Amino acid sequence: MSREPSAPAGKIPVAVLGATGSVGQRFLTLLADHPWFEVVRLTASDRSAGRPYREAVSWVQAAPKSERIAGMDLLPTEAAAVAGCPLVFSALDAAVAGPVEAELAAAGHLVVTNAGSHRMDPDVPLVVPEVNPDHLEVAAGQIARGVGAILANPNCSTIGLALALKPLADAFGLERVHVVTMQAVSGAGLPGVASMQILDNVIPWIAGEEEKVESETRKILGRLRAHGESGIGGWFVDHPVEVSAQCNRVPVVDGHTACVSVGLGRRVAIDEVRAAWEGFAGEPQRLRLPSAPARPIHFLDRPDAPQPRLHRDLEGGMAASVERLRPCPLLGFRFVTLSHNTVRGAAGGALLLAELAVAKGLLTGRGLPAMASTAR
Amino acid sequence: MSREPSAPAGKIPVAVLGATGSVGQRFLTLLADHPWFEVVRLTASDRSAGRPYREAVSWVQAAPKSERIAGMDLLPTEAAAVAGCPLVFSALDAAVAGPVEAELAAAGHLVVTNAGSHRMDPDVPLVVPEVNPDHLEVAAGQIARGVGAILANPNCSTIGLALALKPLADAFGLERVHVVTMQAVSGAGLPGVASMQILDNVIPWIAGEEEKVESETRKILGRLRAHGESGIGGWFVDHPVEVSAQCNRVPVVDGHTACVSVGLGRRVAIDEVRAAWEGFAGEPQRLRLPSAPARPIHFLDRPDAPQPRLHRDLEGGMAASVERLRPCPLLGFRFVTLSHNTVRGAAGGALLLAELAVAKGLLTGRGLPAMASTAR
Amino acid sequence: MSREPSAPAGKIPVAVLGATGSVGQRFLTLLADHPWFEVVRLTASDRSAGRPYREAVSWVQAAPKSERIAGMDLLPTEAAAVAGCPLVFSALDAAVAGPVEAELAAAGHLVVTNAGSHRMDPDVPLVVPEVNPDHLEVAAGQIARGVGAILANPNCSTIGLALALKPLADAFGLERVHVVTMQAVSGAGLPGVASMQILDNVIPWIAGEEEKVESETRKILGRLRAHGESGIGGWFVDHPVEVSAQCNRVPVVDGHTACVSVGLGRRVAIDEVRAAWEGFAGEPQRLRLPSAPARPIHFLDRPDAPQPRLHRDLEGGMAASVERLRPCPLLGFRFVTLSHNTVRGAAGGALLLAELAVAKGLLTGRGLPAMASTAR
Amino acid sequence: MSREPSAPAGKIPVAVLGATGSVGQRFLTLLADHPWFEVVRLTASDRSAGRPYREAVSWVQAAPKSERIAGMDLLPTEAAAVAGCPLVFSALDAAVAGPVEAELAAAGHLVVTNAGSHRMDPDVPLVVPEVNPDHLEVAAGQIARGVGAILANPNCSTIGLALALKPLADAFGLERVHVVTMQAVSGAGLPGVASMQILDNVIPWIAGEEEKVESETRKILGRLRAHGESGIGGWFVDHPVEVSAQCNRVPVVDGHTACVSVGLGRRVAIDEVRAAWEGFAGEPQRLRLPSAPARPIHFLDRPDAPQPRLHRDLEGGMAASVERLRPCPLLGFRFVTLSHNTVRGAAGGALLLAELAVAKGLLTGRGLPAMASTAR
Repeated sequence: MSREPSAPAGKIPVAVLGATGSVGQRFLTLLADHPWFEVVRLTASDRSAGRPYREAVSWVQAAPKSERIAGMDLLPTEAAAVAGCPLVFSALDAAVAGPVEAELAAAGHLVVTNAGSHRMDPDVPLVVPEVNPDHLEVAAGQIARGVGAILANPNCSTIGLALALKPLADAFGLERVHVVTMQAVSGAGLPGVASMQILDNVIPWIAGEEEKVESETRKILGRLRAHGESGIGGWFVDHPVEVSAQCNRVPVVDGHTACVSVGLGRRVAIDEVRAAWEGFAGEPQRLRLPSAPARPIHFLDRPDAPQPRLHRDLEGGMAASVERLRPCPLLGFRFVTLSHNTVRGAAGGALLLAELAVAKGLLTGRGLPAMASTAR
Repeated sequence: MSREPSAPAGKIPVAVLGATGSVGQRFLTLLADHPWFEVVRLTASDRSAGRPYREAVSWVQAAPKSERIAGMDLLPTEAAAVAGCPLVFSALDAAVAGPVEAELAAAGHLVVTNAGSHRMDPDVPLVVPEVNPDHLEVAAGQIARGVGAILANPNCSTIGLALALKPLADAFGLERVHVVTMQAVSGAGLPGVASMQILDNVIPWIAGEEEKVESETRKILGRLRAHGESGIGGWFVDHPVEVSAQCNRVPVVDGHTACVSVGLGRRVAIDEVRAAWEGFAGEPQRLRLPSAPARPIHFLDRPDAPQPRLHRDLEGGMAASVERLRPCPLLGFRFVTLSHNTVRGAAGGALLLAELAVAKGLLTGRGLPAMASTAR
Repeated sequence: MSREPSAPAGKIPVAVLGATGSVGQRFLTLLADHPWFEVVRLTASDRSAGRPYREAVSWVQAAPKSERIAGMDLLPTEAAAVAGCPLVFSALDAAVAGPVEAELAAAGHLVVTNAGSHRMDPDVPLVVPEVNPDHLEVAAGQIARGVGAILANPNCSTIGLALALKPLADAFGLERVHVVTMQAVSGAGLPGVASMQILDNVIPWIAGEEEKVESETRKILGRLRAHGESGIGGWFVDHPVEVSAQCNRVPVVDGHTACVSVGLGRRVAIDEVRAAWEGFAGEPQRLRLPSAPARPIHFLDRPDAPQPRLHRDLEGGMAASVERLRPCPLLGFRFVTLSHNTVRGAAGGALLLAELAVAKGLLTGRGLPAMASTAR
Repeated sequence: MSREPSAPAGKIPVAVLGATGSVGQRFLTLLADHPWFEVVRLTASDRSAGRPYREAVSWVQAAPKSERIAGMDLLPTEAAAVAGCPLVFSALDAAVAGPVEAELAAAGHLVVTNAGSHRMDPDVPLVVPEVNPDHLEVAAGQIARGVGAILANPNCSTIGLALALKPLADAFGLERVHVVTMQAVSGAGLPGVASMQILDNVIPWIAGEEEKVESETRKILGRLRAHGESGIGGWFVDHPVEVSAQCNRVPVVDGHTACVSVGLGRRVAIDEVRAAWEGFAGEPQRLRLPSAPARPIHFLDRPDAPQPRLHRDLEGGMAASVERLRPCPLLGFRFVTLSHNTVRGAAGGALLLAELAVAKGLLTGRGLPAMASTAR
C-alpha cells in the first residue's frame, strides 16, 4: 500500500475490489494481458487482507491465474488501498459494496461495479454498452464537476435480456415482456448455492432477482433526459414496458437461459424480428473496443438452441444468443435467449463498460484515439 | 400365452404393454400389491419377447422389482398375448402404440394408455381423474355398444398443469395461461436424453411437447356435450382458454416444474386463489380410489418451493404442489407448480384413471361398491 | 429451558445438538415416531438460538418436518439446555463439538455423537453396532463409575467399509485394504461443497478424510482388551490391517460408493466371500433393535451395482450393499460397496448405536427386555 | 465419391469414418485448420449416408462446426468412399470397425483408429506417441512390404494412465499398478449413457473397460522385439507390470480422473517421483508435432487437484495432469491423474499419432523435414 502503483507505459493502473470471489476471479482472468488496463491492486475482506492472493483464493476458473497476480498481496477494501488507481473494478458483495463504492467515487475514482447496491440510484448510470451508452453522460457530468462516478453493470439476468430486447424496442416498439429464467449456479457466487440444494433439483426462487430484472430492464431501455443548457448530465426516464419476470436456479455451471415472450408496438412479420437481431450492433462494435464481440447477438438457426453448455462461450462469452423464435398466442412472439452470466453478465460486461467509459473520455477528459489503435 | 391368465380371487387380471421401458417399470412398481389389479401378462418389442423380464429389462427404479414379475416371460405386443385381460395398461412408445391399442380396443379390451397416439382422437377421453371424470362417459357409450375403449392419460407436463388450473377455472374462469416448463429427463424415457446432452445444460426444446400442452389442456378442461336422447356417450368441446407453452429439459431425474401465469375470468384476491387450491378435491378423493392422494394439490407455504427433489414424492408422487403465488403484472397471477412426471404424470396417473374407470363400472357394467372396501 | 422436559410414558426424552444442519435434520426425520425416544430439546448455534425451528432451518430433506418439531424453540448449545435428557444426540460441527460433548458427558449424559472430535479418544468407543458392539463395555465402565459417556459414530465413509469388511475379517482374516471412495455432497453438510465446485466435476480430496478412514477402520475392527479383575471397561487395540484410502467427492446427492480391494488372511474361493456377506448379521439384528435393518449387507447380484441412486435407500438407508465381487490381480479380491452416508453413515448409524446402548443397559443399568416389545 | 479428392497444396487429403458420432465430431473440430491435413471425405452409417453433414449430425461440441464441413455429403463407410485418401481416421463404433479397417489397410491406406477392434492384434501398434513411438516400426515394416497399416489409439482411460506411468517405469521400474477410474460420460459416445442412469449417480461398471486398461497398459509399456536381420518390423512384448483396474462412470461431461497406486522397482524419494514427471518429454515434443502439448504431464501443485472441470483443457486438452502424490501404505506411492478423454483420450490422441506416423515417414517413405516447418 506504501508506494504508488505503476503500470506499463500507456496502461491505466486499475484495482479489483473483492478479488477472491468468483466475479473477482473472472475480472482477473479477463484483465490478464488487457491492452489498456493493468491490475496493480487487489483487495479482499479483512479476513483475507495481508495474505498473498494464491493462498487466500479458492480458484474455480478453468483458466489458470497468472503468476504475477498469484503473488500479489491482498489489501483491505478501503480508499487507501486503491490510491493511484483512477479506475476501480468492484466485485464486492452487495452487503458491503454500497458505502465503499460511494466513498471511492467521492474520492475521485471511476468505480465500475458489478454489485447491486447503487444500480437504481438516480445519478448512477446502469449500462449495457450496446444498449444505452448515452447514459454515461450523467457520469460525465459528475466528473466535469470534479468528483468521481459509479458506473453500474446490471444484474446478470438483465444484461442478456436487455441485449435481446434492444433491437426489438428500437425497430418495433416494446410493450410487454414475460420472462422466465433458468440461471446458472455461478451467478450466486461463492459459496453461493450449496450442492445439496441444486443437484437433481430446480430452485424456483432467487431472492430479489425478479424485482431486479423488472426494474433494471426499464431503466436500461429508458431514455436520458438532458439537463438544460449545460448539455452535461441529465436524468433517467424508465421505459414504459411492462415486465413480468420469474427466476429459477438450475444445475448448470455457467450461462443463464431465458424463455421470453414479447408484445411489440406494432404488427411485425417473424422475419423482421430475426433481421432486427442479425443486423444489430452498438457503440462497442463501432468503437472496436477490446472486449467487444464482433456481433453482440447471434441468431443460432438450430431448433434446439440456445443451450448453455454449447453456446455460452460464443465470442469468448461476450455475445448473447437467441433462437426458438416463434409466435406466442398470448403476447406476440416467443424466443429463448442465453448469455454467459459471469462473463457478459458480470466481469466481462463491467470490463466492456469501463472500456466504453475510457473511450468516451470519462477518465481522461479525452476520448479514444490514442488507445483504439492498441485494440487487440 | 397358452393358458388363460388367472388372478387371485377378486382381482382383475391385467397386462402391461411395453413393460421394459421406464414407464413400464413404473407401472409394475405401482401395481405391486395393488388391491384390485394383478399383473399377469407383460409384453415387449419383438427383440425382447421370449426372454424372462429380469434378463431383458435395464431396471432404473429405486424400488426393487418383485421376484414374481422378474421371472415372468415377455410376450410379443399383440392381441393374442393379452387375451383374458379385460384391462390393459399401455406403456408403449408413441411410434408403435397407435395401431396396437386400436386393435385391442376393437377386441373388447379397456386400454388405459400413456402413449400420445390417440389422445386427441375425438372418441378417446383424455382424462385427469380429478379434473374431467365425466369425459369417461364417451367410453362408457362405446362399451355399451359392445366394443372396448381407449382411455388416454395426458402428457406428463399437461397433467400437473391441468390439476393446478382446474380449481381456478371452476372458481374464477380461466382466459389465458402462459406456462414455461423445466422437465425432468425421465420424461424422455429410455434411452431418452443422452447424458452428454443434458449434464451442465438446459435444452430449450422438446419435440412436439409445446403443442401437446397447449391442445391437451384445452381438451381436458373442456366440456362433454352429451349425445341426444341416449344419455350415453357424447363429444368433447375444448375449453376456450388461450395457452402459450414453452418447454425445456433440465438435468433433474424426476419431477416437472412449471412457471405459470394466468389470466382469470374475474378480479380475485390472492387469498381466494390459494383457498381454491387448498379446498380442492375431486372424484378420486370422494370415491377413495386406492391410488388417489388425500389432497391432489398441496400449497407448500415456503418461499422457495416447490422443488423437484424435495416435493415430487408428496403422497407417493400422486399429488401436485404449488407455491410462489404472486401477482403477474401482465396476466394476473403467477405461480410455480410441480408434479412427479413418471408417477402422477405417467404410470400413476394412468393407474388412477383405470381405478376411476373400474369404479364407474366401465369394466363390469357395475360400479364401485364391491371393491371400495378393499382400498388400501 | 425452564421446566424439565417430559416425554410420553415409557419414552426417553432426548435432545439433538446442532439440529439445523443436514445431519441434525436427518436425526429429526429418523426420530419422528421413534418407539423409544422422544425429541424434547433442540439446540443450535448462538446465531439461531431463540428462534423457532421452522424459521431458523433451511430444510433440505424430502420428508417434511413434523409440526411439533417445527414449532419448537432452538436453545443455545450448552449444558443447561439439555438438563433432563439422559440421552443426547450430537450433530455438531467438529469445530465446536469437542468441549461441549466432553462437558455433557462429565455432567452425566450419554452423548451419542456424529462429530469427529472424540472418535480416536482412548476412552471413547467408536462403534458400528453390527461390527464391534463389545466396545460399549468401555462406556459401561465409565457409567459404572458414575459419570456419563461419549459414544462415537464413525466417519460416513468408514461405516459402510467396516460393515463390508467385518464378515471377511471374521471368516478369513484381513491383512490389506485398498479403498477409493466416491462420496456424496451431503457428506459435507450445509453449506458444504459449493455447487460451482462440484457440478460437472470430481474433487479428488476431502480434508482429513483419508486419515479418518484409515485409522477409524483399524479401531473399529480392533479388539477390546478387558481391564484386569473388575471386568468392566478396558481399552482398544487396533486391528493390524493395513489400509490405504483415497477419497473423492462426486456430484451425487446421497450415498457413498467405494471401490475396495482386499488381501485376506488365507486362500478363499470367491463363493465363500459372497457367502460370508450373505450370512452376516450382528447384535442389532439379534436384539431386533427398532432401527436395525433385517440384513445389514445386501449382495445385489447385478453386474452394474451398487449404484447410489438405486441402492442407497435399501432398508430405509440402513443397509449397505455390495457387488462387483471379482479377483484382484494385486491383492486378492475386489468389490464395490455402497451405503447411505446421512442415514447409515450419520444420523441413522448414531440412532442405531443409541438403541444398542439402551438395549445393553447403559442408560438405565438395566437392559433391553421392557423395550424390545415396542420395536416397530 | 466420384472424383478424386483434392487438398490445398502441400496438405494430405484425409477421410474421417464415422463422422457424426461424438469422437467423429472431435476429429473434425481438431482437424479444422490443421497445417498438414485436410478433411475431404466423411463417412457415416448407411442410415445417414447421402445426407449433408449438417442435417445428419447432432452436434454436441461447444466449438461450432465449419461451414465447409457442414456442407459436405456423408458417404457410406466403404473402400470406394475413401479412395485417394492415403490417411484415414476411424471414429467407428467397435461393433463395425473391425472388418472395414482391415479392408482399408489391405487396400493400402494408413488407418489411424480410435476403435478397440484391432488394439490387441499382434501386428497393430497400440501407441501413445510420448510413450512407445518405437512401436510404429511394425507398421513401417508392413508398409515396406507394400500394404497399408492400422495404427491404434488406446482406450481413453489407458492413455492418461500410460502417460503418467511412463516416466516412473523408465526411471524406477514399475511392478504393480492399482487404478480406480472415474470416467466422464462423453467416453460412452452418443447416445451412450442415458441421463436417467447417471444424474445423481455413479455406475461402477463399464463393459469391458477394466480388461482393456489392464491389457493395453502392458502392451503400450511393453518392448518391441525387432525381426532378425531386416531391421524392419518386429513384435510386441508386454511389460510385466501387474495392473488392477476398477472403472466407474460419473456425472462429468469430459475428463477421466484416476486414483492410482504404484509399486515401483526400487526405493524412491517422493521428490524423485515428481521430478520424473516434471522432466518428462517424448518424441512429439522433440519433433514439435503440430498437436503436441509443450509438456505432456503437468504436476499441478495444488492439494485438491486435478479436477476435470478445471484441468481437462490444459494445453487444449492434450496434456495430462497429476497431483495428490503421497505415499501409499500398501504399494508405495499414490496419486491422481486426469486427462481429457475425447481430446487426448480419443480424437486428439489419434491425431497426434497420425502426425507422428507422418513425421516418421510412414506415409511417404520420407520423414518429417518438409512438414515440420509448417507446425502451427
